[in-house]
Amino acid sequence: MQEDQNRSKRKEQSRYERGWQRLLELDSQGGQPIVDGLQAIAPDLATAIIAFAFGDIYSRSGLDLKQRQLVTIACLVTLGDSEPQLEFHLGAALNVGLEPAEVVEALMNCVPFVGVPRVFNALGVAKRLFLSRDIQIP
Amino acid sequence: MQEDQNRSKRKEQSRYERGWQRLLELDSQGGQPIVDGLQAIAPDLATAIIAFAFGDIYSRSGLDLKQRQLVTIACLVTLGDSEPQLEFHLGAALNVGLEPAEVVEALMNCVPFVGVPRVFNALGVAKRLFLSRDIQIP
Amino acid sequence: MQEDQNRSKRKEQSRYERGWQRLLELDSQGGQPIVDGLQAIAPDLATAIIAFAFGDIYSRSGLDLKQRQLVTIACLVTLGDSEPQLEFHLGAALNVGLEPAEVVEALMNCVPFVGVPRVFNALGVAKRLFLSRDIQIP
Amino acid sequence: MQEDQNRSKRKEQSRYERGWQRLLELDSQGGQPIVDGLQAIAPDLATAIIAFAFGDIYSRSGLDLKQRQLVTIACLVTLGDSEPQLEFHLGAALNVGLEPAEVVEALMNCVPFVGVPRVFNALGVAKRLFLSRDIQIP
Amino acid sequence: MQEDQNRSKRKEQSRYERGWQRLLELDSQGGQPIVDGLQAIAPDLATAIIAFAFGDIYSRSGLDLKQRQLVTIACLVTLGDSEPQLEFHLGAALNVGLEPAEVVEALMNCVPFVGVPRVFNALGVAKRLFLSRDIQIP
Amino acid sequence: MQEDQNRSKRKEQSRYERGWQRLLELDSQGGQPIVDGLQAIAPDLATAIIAFAFGDIYSRSGLDLKQRQLVTIACLVTLGDSEPQLEFHLGAALNVGLEPAEVVEALMNCVPFVGVPRVFNALGVAKRLFLSRDIQIP
Repeated sequence: MQEDQNRSKRKEQSRYERGWQRLLELDSQGGQPIVDGLQAIAPDLATAIIAFAFGDIYSRSGLDLKQRQLVTIACLVTLGDSEPQLEFHLGAALNVGLEPAEVVEALMNCVPFVGVPRVFNALGVAKRLFLSRDIQIP
Repeated sequence: MQEDQNRSKRKEQSRYERGWQRLLELDSQGGQPIVDGLQAIAPDLATAIIAFAFGDIYSRSGLDLKQRQLVTIACLVTLGDSEPQLEFHLGAALNVGLEPAEVVEALMNCVPFVGVPRVFNALGVAKRLFLSRDIQIP
Repeated sequence: MQEDQNRSKRKEQSRYERGWQRLLELDSQGGQPIVDGLQAIAPDLATAIIAFAFGDIYSRSGLDLKQRQLVTIACLVTLGDSEPQLEFHLGAALNVGLEPAEVVEALMNCVPFVGVPRVFNALGVAKRLFLSRDIQIP
Repeated sequence: MQEDQNRSKRKEQSRYERGWQRLLELDSQGGQPIVDGLQAIAPDLATAIIAFAFGDIYSRSGLDLKQRQLVTIACLVTLGDSEPQLEFHLGAALNVGLEPAEVVEALMNCVPFVGVPRVFNALGVAKRLFLSRDIQIP
Repeated sequence: MQEDQNRSKRKEQSRYERGWQRLLELDSQGGQPIVDGLQAIAPDLATAIIAFAFGDIYSRSGLDLKQRQLVTIACLVTLGDSEPQLEFHLGAALNVGLEPAEVVEALMNCVPFVGVPRVFNALGVAKRLFLSRDIQIP
Repeated sequence: MQEDQNRSKRKEQSRYERGWQRLLELDSQGGQPIVDGLQAIAPDLATAIIAFAFGDIYSRSGLDLKQRQLVTIACLVTLGDSEPQLEFHLGAALNVGLEPAEVVEALMNCVPFVGVPRVFNALGVAKRLFLSRDIQIP
């Protein structure tokens, strides 16, 4: 019984660790400020989401991280009202190798489907991010 | 004056024709049934959208069509209530070279960001599309 | 006490009746099938909504019914997944005097703000409505 | 006629007063800052909403206030972009007897249905609220 | 190494089995048709969601299943375009002990926050469900 | 060939210039700060949107600018998370001749369809705008 619980804990750690590794590939600090904020109020959720979103889903082999970031950015632009997450994932998009111009192009590609306002907001977030990294656009 | 109008018309045709060419790359019939439906009630809009969405945006060089389809599919999944457009763009994703497994993977990637229901609906559309093309998944 | 309750009931009837009158201006059957559907499962809600939405809000004098229908249609297009309500309010728009071409124009006006898919769906609803009324468009 | 108007006014007051009482049960100041903000620009709407939302709906007997707050919080989390309302209703949830841990649990329960970003934002609002009330979580 | 993989597999089964048990409490067939539909196109996702949504989240002790169903229903109503999921979770709400009148009351409670159209659609789903179970409402 | 490109460029300028003229009717500075923000990160998009949204759509004759602003405001309120665009278009609504009371009335008209929170936020934006223009409301 005790042994079983130990095994379960190890397995959880394995999903979590795989997710955490993936997060570190997206962002050298693994989105630590976001995770810390979540830890302070819902620590189990922080753990479960890292294991599920990044350990189960993002660690799969079917798409590379550049492709995943295109998908994720489009989700967040369309959803709206997700500025901190969008900022994190736009930064991650650059970190995994998408060019700034590709990121801008992906945002532009959303206009016909979700309208101008959602994309304007997202371009504002991208602009601040690029400035903070001394990226010249266009 | 007459000459100016002729030039304007040609230019419009040029954006429209570029857009229509792009549509034909996405779908061998250029989404004709959707376009026809639109022509019947708002023909100017059909023309303007083909010129803008596919002539201005989709024809840009910054992303290839496989990347664009990842972005577009994620927009439509997140938006919800877009079944005919989603079906068209899932088919287009296959037509421009994304593997069926990559399409499914892209839909799965949306779950942490937009929740299960939107993705379930989209997977149902994908399943019907794959069946209609005799694609075995998984 | 009994008298007070009678007065209250009369007042409720007055808001409800004002709302019902407004509904009859929008649609000669007052959206009866929708109301009936609601009556069968949540009769108090049917009453409360007619009194609030149509008695309190729609009966105010600040905008005429043509202006209100432009606002309402834009809300429903943007919201998505509201086909029965959209069909009712597109019909009401015609009933209160908006031209079919104005209705189509209003839907087109939504494209830059909410994207193409929401408007395509709405134009499909409008097309069916126009067909059912033998309206030639465009 | 004059008498009728007096009766109508009393009845309106009765729905409004019932709603205002309900608001005072949710929040000892009845959301006064929100109501004041609304009074300054659309006073009739402030009155109509208190009468409808809190007098007609929230005062019904079918669910207790703890159940209603679970429903309302989930609506606001899913809707997004509703921070002042969410803050008010999270506070009201505590005021009517939900434990802080239950509130956090309710927010966590939304993740599979609406995705992580909406819930992260809501947990941030909850964290600020808990801090302002010296509530230790978890 | 082989042993470690066996342990991992057991642990995954434990989260999945806990989730599946939870699903069976919500619905005597565990939503089998929905799960089957998902299995046919994205089997790993079916497994991961049952483990995460029902094993990690829904199996927590902080809220009982009646409370969880109130939260979940409100999420789905607000989200819109989620009819199969809404039908499943309305049925589950009854299965775990919410009265039909409480379910209707919860839907009514959403009106001030998400508007009438979303709630009308949801009441239509509820009505069909109640009819299929020979439930008289109101 | 060179001549054709010159013609194309002129035609583009014509759609753009028509759009820019329309923008100047909506706002004496043509939304210059918003346009500038966009120019800095996606200049082609700024051009394409002015040509499409304001040159192709907003310049059509089927609705006058007061009607268009009613539609646009309702789109933005319903969409949520569009504060800068909403502020611009509420100001434009006044600029093209809608009365402040009509603008408030239009926002109130959205409540039954999109719920209270979206409208509260929009009324807050309207209140700040009215203050900045020394408009007394109500």
